[in-house]
Parts: sequence; structure tokens; C-alpha cells
Amino acid sequence: MNISAFKDVASQFPVIFFDSYGVLRNHRGPIPGALETVSVLRASGKHIRILTNNAARSPEAAAARLADYGLRGISSAEVITSGATTRHFLEQKVKGGKVAYLGTPASAEYIIGAGLDAIPISDVDFERLDEIKAVAFLDDEGYDKNVDINLLINILRRCQVPVVVANTDLLYPTTANDVALATGSIARLAEYVLGRKFVKFGKPASQMFQMALDSVAVEMPSVCPADILMVGDTLHTDILGGNTYGVATALVLSGNTRPESAATEIAASGIIPDYVCHSIGK
Amino acid sequence: MNISAFKDVASQFPVIFFDSYGVLRNHRGPIPGALETVSVLRASGKHIRILTNNAARSPEAAAARLADYGLRGISSAEVITSGATTRHFLEQKVKGGKVAYLGTPASAEYIIGAGLDAIPISDVDFERLDEIKAVAFLDDEGYDKNVDINLLINILRRCQVPVVVANTDLLYPTTANDVALATGSIARLAEYVLGRKFVKFGKPASQMFQMALDSVAVEMPSVCPADILMVGDTLHTDILGGNTYGVATALVLSGNTRPESAATEIAASGIIPDYVCHSIGK
Amino acid sequence: MNISAFKDVASQFPVIFFDSYGVLRNHRGPIPGALETVSVLRASGKHIRILTNNAARSPEAAAARLADYGLRGISSAEVITSGATTRHFLEQKVKGGKVAYLGTPASAEYIIGAGLDAIPISDVDFERLDEIKAVAFLDDEGYDKNVDINLLINILRRCQVPVVVANTDLLYPTTANDVALATGSIARLAEYVLGRKFVKFGKPASQMFQMALDSVAVEMPSVCPADILMVGDTLHTDILGGNTYGVATALVLSGNTRPESAATEIAASGIIPDYVCHSIGK
Amino acid sequence: MNISAFKDVASQFPVIFFDSYGVLRNHRGPIPGALETVSVLRASGKHIRILTNNAARSPEAAAARLADYGLRGISSAEVITSGATTRHFLEQKVKGGKVAYLGTPASAEYIIGAGLDAIPISDVDFERLDEIKAVAFLDDEGYDKNVDINLLINILRRCQVPVVVANTDLLYPTTANDVALATGSIARLAEYVLGRKFVKFGKPASQMFQMALDSVAVEMPSVCPADILMVGDTLHTDILGGNTYGVATALVLSGNTRPESAATEIAASGIIPDYVCHSIGK
Repeated sequence: MNISAFKDVASQFPVIFFDSYGVLRNHRGPIPGALETVSVLRASGKHIRILTNNAARSPEAAAARLADYGLRGISSAEVITSGATTRHFLEQKVKGGKVAYLGTPASAEYIIGAGLDAIPISDVDFERLDEIKAVAFLDDEGYDKNVDINLLINILRRCQVPVVVANTDLLYPTTANDVALATGSIARLAEYVLGRKFVKFGKPASQMFQMALDSVAVEMPSVCPADILMVGDTLHTDILGGNTYGVATALVLSGNTRPESAATEIAASGIIPDYVCHSIGK
Repeated sequence: MNISAFKDVASQFPVIFFDSYGVLRNHRGPIPGALETVSVLRASGKHIRILTNNAARSPEAAAARLADYGLRGISSAEVITSGATTRHFLEQKVKGGKVAYLGTPASAEYIIGAGLDAIPISDVDFERLDEIKAVAFLDDEGYDKNVDINLLINILRRCQVPVVVANTDLLYPTTANDVALATGSIARLAEYVLGRKFVKFGKPASQMFQMALDSVAVEMPSVCPADILMVGDTLHTDILGGNTYGVATALVLSGNTRPESAATEIAASGIIPDYVCHSIGK
Repeated sequence: MNISAFKDVASQFPVIFFDSYGVLRNHRGPIPGALETVSVLRASGKHIRILTNNAARSPEAAAARLADYGLRGISSAEVITSGATTRHFLEQKVKGGKVAYLGTPASAEYIIGAGLDAIPISDVDFERLDEIKAVAFLDDEGYDKNVDINLLINILRRCQVPVVVANTDLLYPTTANDVALATGSIARLAEYVLGRKFVKFGKPASQMFQMALDSVAVEMPSVCPADILMVGDTLHTDILGGNTYGVATALVLSGNTRPESAATEIAASGIIPDYVCHSIGK
Repeated sequence: MNISAFKDVASQFPVIFFDSYGVLRNHRGPIPGALETVSVLRASGKHIRILTNNAARSPEAAAARLADYGLRGISSAEVITSGATTRHFLEQKVKGGKVAYLGTPASAEYIIGAGLDAIPISDVDFERLDEIKAVAFLDDEGYDKNVDINLLINILRRCQVPVVVANTDLLYPTTANDVALATGSIARLAEYVLGRKFVKFGKPASQMFQMALDSVAVEMPSVCPADILMVGDTLHTDILGGNTYGVATALVLSGNTRPESAATEIAASGIIPDYVCHSIGK
């Protein structure tokens, strides 16, 4: 497995798409060197977008969070969340009514923003299930996994309504060596025990890539996938999604994929990044 | 879908294997008519065994629990738990050391019974992971799903040790209409996010059937699978397991499989019981 | 399950996306009434696109084939094939060299159109595997399934190169009651035995939807997903893809999904179309 | 990954279970050193059984085949085939009628031996499908994969009958570096496209292990799993099955699992053999 210097890789592309957690920052703060790298890319006129499988907060809040970590100057318009794709879906496909959700109140803003009523799974009235027009997996926090996953399963055994998953990540890094279950894992568990297929947003699905491309096209009308480098720490989302969409892909080893097992994971999965870098700071 | 009277079906077989929860009893007490049915079967000289995907309690405790529900006269020797199969495995394959587990203290008796040290996942010392010789999924209670599943995943990312699942059920009924996640679901989730295969006990695997057959053979030396009826409420465990082992199978609609969706579930799964009955009381 | 008249459904949308096989035509010719329906839609100014999970022929050949069946006046620019998406990917991600493929010579045009050399799997020289820069599943015909699937698996055991699947359909209808394995099934089999993930094109992935939307936008600049009805005969591709992309979906029962099992399949899969119609002719 | 000498491992166990293809012999003949190893084990009084996921020939023919390769003195009573388990199932669960199969005429003997009529898939009369009482996947040869898999799928779309898979292997080695699809792969493909679960025989299921243990018990009444070493070349069948049954397991690198990828496959699968040996000849 060849390790490339990130700066050498980035220099070949006018547009860089970054995953956020594990790439720009982690639980401790910015990835070492990330601030400098982003500054250098900005100074050289690169177009930057952040594609984050996250419905926990709005693009505005996500940009503010990055600023808190020192990554200043990233505007909310440069942040593409999987929550935004989910909101768009709800606007198109659900005509009024209540949407029951697993997540935090902040994540429920994506339901409210679609003009719908958001109701936590724990508040659903089993006597009035006909009011529920959709069910949403938004965030892995904001509910009690001991109780609310069972409630959701019992609701879905009674209701044939669309079910949306705003974040297909299975795991996210919480420390240098540790991970936690992300929303995608909980949704996958529910799909498996129910034998159903939910509608899924976020990488590796291509809509976030298309939304980001459309956004860059405003600044750079000629942009096409060959101009773009997708940088991520997760093979099954960032790299598979980028490969499928047709952009170049760089795997960084500063997050979900650990340096000591990266070669094994690439070989076992068959998801082959175009480049592997230690981090965007190196 | 033809519905048969259970008594007519049972009369054809000298040996009856029952699943417990959803078949003999549920959260409210015995299934209506179950006590009478078991009495009649006893009086007619049938050999009875209870095959329960359960490592939450010992065969003795399981028999006592059935007696509490009015199902008296079932001895612990007639109860085959998936925990007992798990204990047997640990005796054979793990030579001393600590086994980290998800479950209640009662379930941990199956580890202790194998001559090993049982340590709850939440008590594992990450500085001394080399002491952990196996990891066990025993019960869906006794731990905090908000915290301990993540701990287990982080332990298994660091350790290559055998992982055993004492109960492969995905769901169990908690009321007439409701279900809850069983240990098998949590184990399946961990397998999926880790990309690993664990060693699994309980129906549909055939060992509990063989253990039950061996036990009946003491009383009835000529016994063979053609003599046996397996009665269960779950297609993917009781019926698939019985079909695979070569015994006759009867699905009852008093538990996991609901009357209104039974035909759909049989058609969609391709797991075809020889008989379908409302319950063992009818 | 409510059955709607197709004309009533279509009247609500200015843009109609059709799947081809099983919707517009089948092995016998056009679906009864399809020609009239398409004429009526044309006359009323609807924008029409054909989205076909097919890499067996070019958009030109696909349009000519429809004309042969009496569906005249559909231009090649209105036909979006999964082969075209695949060609676009190869252009972006593979820089020269040979692409080994399963499929017919006609399907290989999508490789040649990307400026690459196309070589049938049966002609690959195992002594010069370093020349192979990608592997493509293009069509279910044009090769011997008794021999060539094994060759492909043995090549992929030796090579870490991108693998693309130009058609994710599992089955396609061959007569009123019969189906055949499509390319997606063979690719899924290879993924399973190799434990790898391939890059997949065609519905349910959203790129064909985006390509079709972009194409309509030339004629109707204001078009958005709410304007579009996706009409298909397959839950896991047409309906799941349309639901995920956020357009309205109509399942027709003239192809892969049989009238007698449609309700079962919808319930079991959880893939819920907005409308169900007998066919586009009724 | 520690590599052990096979003789040192085998010396610790009074009973040795061998997989056949890839362990005792391959396409060229006996594995180098296998004859001597078996002779030495015999001379030292070990109990030997051959557990082969194979329904292509009878135990008698399998023993004769081993003798042809120089492995003389193995009696048919020492050979446990997955076909024998399948025959036993058909005897127990199918009461007369025709069983449609994919396989060779030799493999169909397991159906005929169960007192049933065997009919190749290609000879099934679609006008008289009610005569078909079961469908069996017996062997990967004896039929045309271009035609007969489609026939089988179309039969199963019309019939709700038990489906049995006599060999769950996904791949088998054909040369030192090459593999071919085994029956288990074709069955898995059909399960996937149909969304059904078939009844499966052969390792990793535990019945062959139990049948072999019962057979040894005639000669060595005290035998228990702790006395047994299972030797195989495939993680997902031999090693997973042996681990699950509770016997010691040795992976040999002379067949399905290649020396250069063994460590990766063990880590990625989580199926951990107790020992790894180059081959039984070393």
C-alpha cells in the first residue's frame, strides 16, 4: 500500500470534497495540520465542500462547529449534510402529518424544515398511529437505546409508511482508538429484524455528491467529476461513494480506518481508493 | 393456509419438542389451554422436551419458572437451553481465563459452570485485554445498550478471540402485539459492523435438537427424528431448525408470528412448517 | 392494495420516467395499450424519458428496438441506459488499458466508447493480468455461464482493480410468467463468494435519475423531482430508486412483479410505491 | 500467524476428522505426504473419518475414489457425505413423489435411495408441477448453467415445496491457484433472487459432525468433542463448523485458503482456527 503526501494529491484537483469527522477534525479538535492545509488550499483557489453524513445539526451549526475547532471561513453553503438530503425527500414525498423520529431535537429541525410535525419515537401514541406519515432515523443520540429501538420496531410492525435513514454510517470514531455505533447501524438492525428496506441518505449514495457538484457549478460552471477529489476516512461511505460517482478518492488514516488494518480492509472489501494518505495534515 | 387443531397433530407423534416463550407461556402467563394440553400429552405417555433459546437462566430455574406459571411437573432434565450448549462449548474450547459477557449475572452462570471467570463487558480493563479469552452474548438484559454495545465493539476491534452467541433469536414477544430485540439481534449488529462471524448456539442450529434427542433416547431407545414434532412460534428458529434436523414442524400463532401476517411470512421466507395451529391450547 | 388507472396517475405529472422491459414492452411486443398511452402523453406535452438498466445496446439501438415494437418517435436522447453511466465512470476513473468483461460484443461498445480496450473474459491471458485495468459485468448474454464465471472469479482473486456492474437488475421477465437471471445476479454472486463490493450502476442508484432530470431541464428549466413520476415493474430497482431520489413512483404489474404476489412483496420488502397500476395500458 | 507441523498437532487427538478435497487430495492426486500421514495415523491407532461436503457420489464411490488416489484402506463407513444427510432428510420429511434436482445422475442416487423419484430440472413438466414434492441442489455439474438455473427459479416461483441444498460449499479448488463455483454458491444465488431460505446440509452445519461422532462411538464409546481434531482447508465450512461443534480445528493451506491471504481471511472473517498447518503432509 503506497502512502502519498496529501498536498501532492490535492494539488492535482481544482475541487476538494472533504468528509468532516475523522478527516478535518475528531473528538479532540482539528486533525493536526488540517487548518494549515485548508488555508493553503483556499489560498491556491481550490473549491472546497464538506460532505458530512450527519443529520445532528444544520449546515449553519455544522459550519459554526468547524469554526469552533479553528476551521474558520467555511460557510454554511459549503457544507452538505445528509440531513439536508433527507429534508428534501420529506418535502417531496410526505404531504403533511407527523414524522416519528429517533434523534435529538436539533436533528428534528430537518423534519420541521420540511413543513412537517416532528414527534420523538417515545412520544408516539399507539392509539393514533394513523397520524404517523413517515418514520426517520436521524441521529444516534437523543433517545434511550434500551427502550426506543423496541418502540420503533413495534410501530413499524403496525404501519406501512416510508422510513428514511438520514445517515448510513455504521460507526464513528470517538477517540483515537475507539468507535461508537452511528445511526446507520441502528437502521440496519431494524431493517434486518423487520425484513424491510428503508430509504437511505448520505454517502455512499450519490445525491450528496450531486448536490455538492451543483453547488460548485455556480462558481465554476465547467466543473465535472474529473475535477474532484473526495477525501474520507471510511471505505464503505466516502470511498465507495466517490468511486461510484466517478470522482478520484483519497483514504486518510486519521479516523475510522486504522493504519494497521487499512491494507486488510481494502483487500477484504474490494473498495480501492485512488490514494491513501496518513491524514490531510501530512 | 390450513389451520390444524393442535391435539390432532400431536396425536401422531410419540415425542413433542416445545419452544417455551410464545408457545407454552407468554408475558401474561400460560397460553390459554396449555396446561390442559400438556397434561393430556403426559397422560397419553408422550415424551416432552422444552427447547428454549435462552441463556438467561439455568434449566432448573427455567423449570421453576414454568411451574410458577402453572406448568408443573416439567423437570429440569426435560429443559434444553441454548445456554447449556454454550457452556459445553466453552468447556471444550476455552482453556481458562476470563470471558467477557453481555447479560445478567444469572446468565453468567453458564460461563462459571464451564470453570471460567465471567466478567461483565462494563468491567473489562482495556489495559489488560490479553486476559480476555472469549466474549459471550448471553442475554438482552443486564447491561446498558447505550454504552455497553460500543464497549464490546471496541474490545473486539482489539482482540482476536472466539465470540459466542448463546441465543440467536432476533425478537421475542413481550405482549400480545409487541416484541423486543433479543440477544441474537445485538450479536448480528456487532457481526455486521465488524465484518466477522461469531459461533452461534440455539435453534435453528441442530445441536439443541440432538441434545434433546439424546435425552429422549434414555427413555425411548428406538427414538428417531420421524417420531418427533417440533412446536414453535418463530419461522427462522423453531421451524427452520426443525425442518433442517428432519423432524415434523408445527407453527403456532400465539407468539412471534402473528395470525394476520403468517401466510405472508411463510411465502416470503420459504420456511414451510408441516402444520400451522392457532396455539397448543386449540 | 388500491389499483389506480395509469392515465389518472400520469395526468398529475408533467414528466414521466418509464422503465422499458416489463413496462413499455415485453418478450412478445409492446404491452397492450402502451402505444396509445405514450401517444396520448406526447400529445398532452408530457416530457418522457426511458430509464433502462441495460448495457446490452446503445441508446440509439434501444430507441430503434422500441421503434421496431411500434413505439415510434422516441429519440435516443430520451433513452438513459445504465451502460451510459458505466461508460462515463470508465472515462473518469480508468486511464487507458484493457477492461475484461462479461457480455456481448454490443455491450462492449460502452467500454470502447470510453477509449479503452475491451476484452472478453474468455480471452484474458492469465500470464499478462497486469494489463487488465478494470473488470466489467455488462450483460447476461454473450458468454458461457458454465465456464466464464469461474474464469472471472479466478481473475479477481489475482487482481485488485475496480469492478463495475452496468446493470443491477437481479431478474428480467422472459414470458408472462417466467424470468431469467440478469447481470446483477451474477455480479452479486461474485461479490458474495469473493467478499468484495463492486461499483454498481443502474436503478436503484440515483445517477440515472439525475442524468434524466438534467436532460429534461434542457426543455423545462424549472423541473424538479416533484414534477416527475417514475413508472416501473420492479420494487428493488425502479420503486426503491424513485422513492430514494424523491420522485413519485408507480408500480405496474405487467412485468417482474406478479399481480398475485404484489401485496406480499410490498409488505415483505417495505418498498412502498405511491401508486399501483395493472399496466400503463389500463 | 503461527504455522504448526501437522504431525505435532494430530498427535494430541485420538480422533481426526478430515475434509477431503484440498486436504487429502486435489485435482492432481493426493496432497504430497498425505498417504504417509494417514498411514502413520492408522498405525498409531487414531480413529479417522472423512467429512466431505459432497453429494456427487456415494460413500462407497468416495472411498473408491480415495483408493484410486492411493489413499487405500479407507472404508465407506468412514466417509460421511453431505449427500447422506440430505438423503436422511428426504426420507423423514418427503412422503413420496418426485424430487426435481440440479446435479449429475450419480448425485440423484441420494434421492432414489430415499425411496423417491428423481427428475432433472430440465425434464420437469411445467404442466404437472403439483407432482414435484421437493427441489434439491445436489451437484455443480450435470446441468447447463445457462438454462437450468433459470428453469429452477421459475419452478420455485410457482411451487411452495421444501428446497434442500446438499452441499453448502461456495467454491472448490480445481488447480493450485484456481477455484470453481460449488453447489452452495448456486443455491445462495437462488435464495437471494427469490428471497427464500433453503434447508442446508454439510459443514458448517453440525449434523455431519454428529453423524461422524456417532460412528466413532461404536469403536470408542467414551469419545467426546474434546477428543477430536477437524482438519479442513475452508474457514466458512470446516473451521466454522468445527469451532461451533466444539472440536479443535486445524486449517491447512493446501486448498481453498491460500497461504498469502490466510491471515487476512482469518482476521476479516473472525473465524479463528486453533491451528494453522501448511498441509497434512508437512
